[in-house]
Amino acid sequence: MIIVMRMGASEAEVGAVTRQIQELGFRAHLSRGEERTIIGLIGDERNVSQQSLELLSGVERVIPVLHPFKLASRDFRPEDSVVSVGSVKVGGRRVTIMAGPCAVESRQQLLETAWAVKEAGASVLRGGAFKPRTSPYAFPGLGEAGLELLAEAREETGLPIVSEVMAPETVGLVSGYADMVQIGTRNMQNYALLHAVGEAGCPVLLKRGLMSTMEEFLMAAEYVLSHGNFHVILCERGIRTFETYTRNTLDINAVPMLKMLTHLPVMVDPSHGTGRWDLVEPVSRASVAAGADGLMVEVHPHPAQALSDGAQSLKPENFAALVRSVSAIAAVLDREV
Amino acid sequence: MIIVMRMGASEAEVGAVTRQIQELGFRAHLSRGEERTIIGLIGDERNVSQQSLELLSGVERVIPVLHPFKLASRDFRPEDSVVSVGSVKVGGRRVTIMAGPCAVESRQQLLETAWAVKEAGASVLRGGAFKPRTSPYAFPGLGEAGLELLAEAREETGLPIVSEVMAPETVGLVSGYADMVQIGTRNMQNYALLHAVGEAGCPVLLKRGLMSTMEEFLMAAEYVLSHGNFHVILCERGIRTFETYTRNTLDINAVPMLKMLTHLPVMVDPSHGTGRWDLVEPVSRASVAAGADGLMVEVHPHPAQALSDGAQSLKPENFAALVRSVSAIAAVLDREV
Amino acid sequence: MIIVMRMGASEAEVGAVTRQIQELGFRAHLSRGEERTIIGLIGDERNVSQQSLELLSGVERVIPVLHPFKLASRDFRPEDSVVSVGSVKVGGRRVTIMAGPCAVESRQQLLETAWAVKEAGASVLRGGAFKPRTSPYAFPGLGEAGLELLAEAREETGLPIVSEVMAPETVGLVSGYADMVQIGTRNMQNYALLHAVGEAGCPVLLKRGLMSTMEEFLMAAEYVLSHGNFHVILCERGIRTFETYTRNTLDINAVPMLKMLTHLPVMVDPSHGTGRWDLVEPVSRASVAAGADGLMVEVHPHPAQALSDGAQSLKPENFAALVRSVSAIAAVLDREV
Amino acid sequence: MIIVMRMGASEAEVGAVTRQIQELGFRAHLSRGEERTIIGLIGDERNVSQQSLELLSGVERVIPVLHPFKLASRDFRPEDSVVSVGSVKVGGRRVTIMAGPCAVESRQQLLETAWAVKEAGASVLRGGAFKPRTSPYAFPGLGEAGLELLAEAREETGLPIVSEVMAPETVGLVSGYADMVQIGTRNMQNYALLHAVGEAGCPVLLKRGLMSTMEEFLMAAEYVLSHGNFHVILCERGIRTFETYTRNTLDINAVPMLKMLTHLPVMVDPSHGTGRWDLVEPVSRASVAAGADGLMVEVHPHPAQALSDGAQSLKPENFAALVRSVSAIAAVLDREV
Repeated sequence: MIIVMRMGASEAEVGAVTRQIQELGFRAHLSRGEERTIIGLIGDERNVSQQSLELLSGVERVIPVLHPFKLASRDFRPEDSVVSVGSVKVGGRRVTIMAGPCAVESRQQLLETAWAVKEAGASVLRGGAFKPRTSPYAFPGLGEAGLELLAEAREETGLPIVSEVMAPETVGLVSGYADMVQIGTRNMQNYALLHAVGEAGCPVLLKRGLMSTMEEFLMAAEYVLSHGNFHVILCERGIRTFETYTRNTLDINAVPMLKMLTHLPVMVDPSHGTGRWDLVEPVSRASVAAGADGLMVEVHPHPAQALSDGAQSLKPENFAALVRSVSAIAAVLDREV
Repeated sequence: MIIVMRMGASEAEVGAVTRQIQELGFRAHLSRGEERTIIGLIGDERNVSQQSLELLSGVERVIPVLHPFKLASRDFRPEDSVVSVGSVKVGGRRVTIMAGPCAVESRQQLLETAWAVKEAGASVLRGGAFKPRTSPYAFPGLGEAGLELLAEAREETGLPIVSEVMAPETVGLVSGYADMVQIGTRNMQNYALLHAVGEAGCPVLLKRGLMSTMEEFLMAAEYVLSHGNFHVILCERGIRTFETYTRNTLDINAVPMLKMLTHLPVMVDPSHGTGRWDLVEPVSRASVAAGADGLMVEVHPHPAQALSDGAQSLKPENFAALVRSVSAIAAVLDREV
Repeated sequence: MIIVMRMGASEAEVGAVTRQIQELGFRAHLSRGEERTIIGLIGDERNVSQQSLELLSGVERVIPVLHPFKLASRDFRPEDSVVSVGSVKVGGRRVTIMAGPCAVESRQQLLETAWAVKEAGASVLRGGAFKPRTSPYAFPGLGEAGLELLAEAREETGLPIVSEVMAPETVGLVSGYADMVQIGTRNMQNYALLHAVGEAGCPVLLKRGLMSTMEEFLMAAEYVLSHGNFHVILCERGIRTFETYTRNTLDINAVPMLKMLTHLPVMVDPSHGTGRWDLVEPVSRASVAAGADGLMVEVHPHPAQALSDGAQSLKPENFAALVRSVSAIAAVLDREV
Repeated sequence: MIIVMRMGASEAEVGAVTRQIQELGFRAHLSRGEERTIIGLIGDERNVSQQSLELLSGVERVIPVLHPFKLASRDFRPEDSVVSVGSVKVGGRRVTIMAGPCAVESRQQLLETAWAVKEAGASVLRGGAFKPRTSPYAFPGLGEAGLELLAEAREETGLPIVSEVMAPETVGLVSGYADMVQIGTRNMQNYALLHAVGEAGCPVLLKRGLMSTMEEFLMAAEYVLSHGNFHVILCERGIRTFETYTRNTLDINAVPMLKMLTHLPVMVDPSHGTGRWDLVEPVSRASVAAGADGLMVEVHPHPAQALSDGAQSLKPENFAALVRSVSAIAAVLDREV
């Protein structure tokens, strides 16, 4: 951590900062420049409050030097992590495709979709039983009945399942049925929930917050990891910008950037990342080309009748085309769907 | 809701959209322009899925006409709502000042602050017992022990108290101690939590999400209202932008804009809205000048030793100066602190 | 254009809006809903001021129905445009790679780079002679001397050249030397400059503004087209968001979205789009996978000595690897570098 | 400037960075932490390329310590600057109100507005003769004829005038008529234009770019100052965010923040900052309460007939009410309109 003193800061002020650093149990390292004196704090700055130092007299600003995440960092674990979801391994040479409806609506809708995505090449089935909705008047999901249908679909097709969990008290319920629980974008910083899935120890698909920096994303993962649960997969799903032609702006840079910073697998959700079914295939290709370890795609047999997210859902035949085209891209990178 | 057909959409496509509207139980109203045919859906569009209509063949885009919120809207209730927090009424001619430390740290810290803010003119005491923190390694708050200290401070000073609630299962606990529960910025779209405070029926201070539109903010309030709990106060606390000199960008436009759209009281949190103690006073003046019904200000007797948010906390003497200067602004608008 | 009246708007207000529409030379089309009356304006709304209608008594809001761009739209010209840059055709089946240094620094630096990028597979040489710099104290480019060096490099290598123009009065100068002039991101809405290149009739590489929506981007192109100059290539180069780990956020969605909206060729600049040389190759692959018609890449023989943008410049050997990997992606899409 | 080495950087890498710093003519200062070695560059870092250092082997990142602006900084000139616009002094104890139509449309419209704003208390007249418009099909302003009308209005009313300049070659023309030239938001980083007004030496009203940080804003001012022209007034006019209910988000924090960083006067444009006439008065009050040195307000005798920006223009009677209410706020701060 580096403390930049104001121009003209007094010796007494410099001395007080130095003493404060020492009292916190760190070493201070002084460097006098032409316009500013700079004081380095030597030690693990992750436990120091940047803001408290900023308030000391004569201090202009305090600059952290280290990334605040540790367990999620490649400094901590240089080689790629692989996370098991049922029998499927995410994060190795394979590009994993997870697909299914936004929401589980009915037995028939789910089974029809499950068989279709399996045939097309998906290896994990997604489906929401508890749905976060912007409007209190919108369809909230089938709840436990939806989880039962997912379990039935797994039994029939053999596909492991992933489903969203929205509250700490239902982590046990959802992880009892699902092979992996999903933390949605609006809950990325719901710390009570991160704590609960950390304790539960189940595989977690953590979606990036709509409004979150990569650093905050990795800190949310750190919450789960810090409870000893290392089964975490990251999922870029678009961030909010000023652009209005698309629902979100998929941050393609985040794919290779996160891969450099962390050992955790990085997937992409092109359905939410674009919000338009007609952009899903090209952006899926782009994601795999950028190095994503997998895709999560919304598929619905009759998108126009979907109870949620119809506009961004693919029909099964379009999804099959997507898998073919994505597989060809993966092959170029010496990977396999 | 207005459905814009693509240039050159066929009669069959127009007919199919019309029939779909009628099957949903609405009337369709056709209007043929020079380049595009437009179809109006007549009825309460809040129950219609925009996305499903967008997927019909020949449709270019679907434009909602009504605001999606209803109970929160001035259409529903034209006159200002007043929310009681203990004996304090928020939302009338008075400008309510809530103040206190970011986090309750100790008996002495809290009582010292409580007496100081009371003397300076605050009428509600704030203090966090459960703290959402970006890092799993940071101070998480004292929990129930913090709530007990808050209750003691209320007994001594007579100030009603507000404190944050982070999970559905602790709503009963927090609302058992506090006169008002606060939903923090990261939980604005935590629907399980909104549901729980809606059911609890207690006064709720709802902070705007860091990257939420005003529409989403009002929809989050709508969640609480839709459970029959109308004791909701909105709080603008800064949004995330590209600017880095300040922690957030306080959206001053939101104050008069929200006052036009909703009957609920609108407060401002200049501490988080700026992230710098030296900007808190001018921005507090600005907020009251723009029509805010109150302020929520972080105060700490020794900001440099604060366990969180020290950089944006005021010392008691600076807070007293703030109250004086804000009172003078309020007087210009014929209001009273 | 659709005019939504306020709830409870009077007959007189509805009548006044209708008359105003008719006085402007359009037809008005009334539709009475349950909560709101809606009035359609029938005719080419691009010539109507939305804001003036919004101010009429009783009006709640005015919603445009048509895209404001016309000549740039696929409605106007459904098939892809191809733009010639010297002997190179941009926009067909080929994926065009333009490469070179951010700034022309010296004869040796330029020629060395030009030969290197040619050998690696680039077909157009880029290089800045007039450089927009955030700081008045930074290297501003060599000016005309830089253009002369570019012309020499073209003569030697046969590569057509593209170079940035910053002011209307130098359009003649730059287009006298270069095969295509570039409008930089900060000048995307410099209307005097757009006017000048429109008049000049030369090929134009128009970079998306850092802060511009796709609609504004297409309107900037429309400025050039409206002067009869149809030789316009669009270039996505990253937009500004709240993310700080990368210099910009490359908007990958924009590639297929723009291709749907416009007939103009769409390129990507992964160097500015990421700001980090180590992200340039994966993001280049992603861009081509998403359907880009070309790439513009910064290459420097000795990035650490570059006078500008060194951090995002590739060494020639890394650029050669990029071309190989991008060519393999292009082949999957049945295109050719 | 601080160079953070990667974890495990070798002695050779540290040595190479140190030598590079010395070769650039600076001193290097080493500090070995537990996880990272840090190297301080001592001297005026404003002339050093951050990016080149980032590319040296073993370097993780480079952090600038100093603000990049110098002449604009309070370090350079601690006391407030006052800029003369005709006979009006901007930046002292007075709060200056500039008002007038967005665009000069006709003799009658301009004179009617000029007299109205003068009577209401404005001391400078604004009006656009050259108008930047998003659409090439929109009204571009009257050009020199507009400037002549402005000069006539000045002669009649005695109000100094300010008008926008869009291109370097018309700086002489506009500054020949106007007492101050305005650089619009889209041209804030039009360096050719900044250079031209710097050379011209005339008073400059510099509007903040729609998506520019305060640092970039001050660097744009620095461009003008670096040509020896210190007659610069800054104007916050709203930035672009994700919010759609308002045209822009007025950055109220920027007012006190800029006043701390720079000696230049800071004004606010609440018309563009909100985009809605019904928000202009509350946001004007807020701006003055936050410490703005002046306001720039769009006024039109018949907003619904305005050729541009009607929706955000005030009628003369509403402007008069604004001046009264803003004057009362100014008085609280011991200032005068």
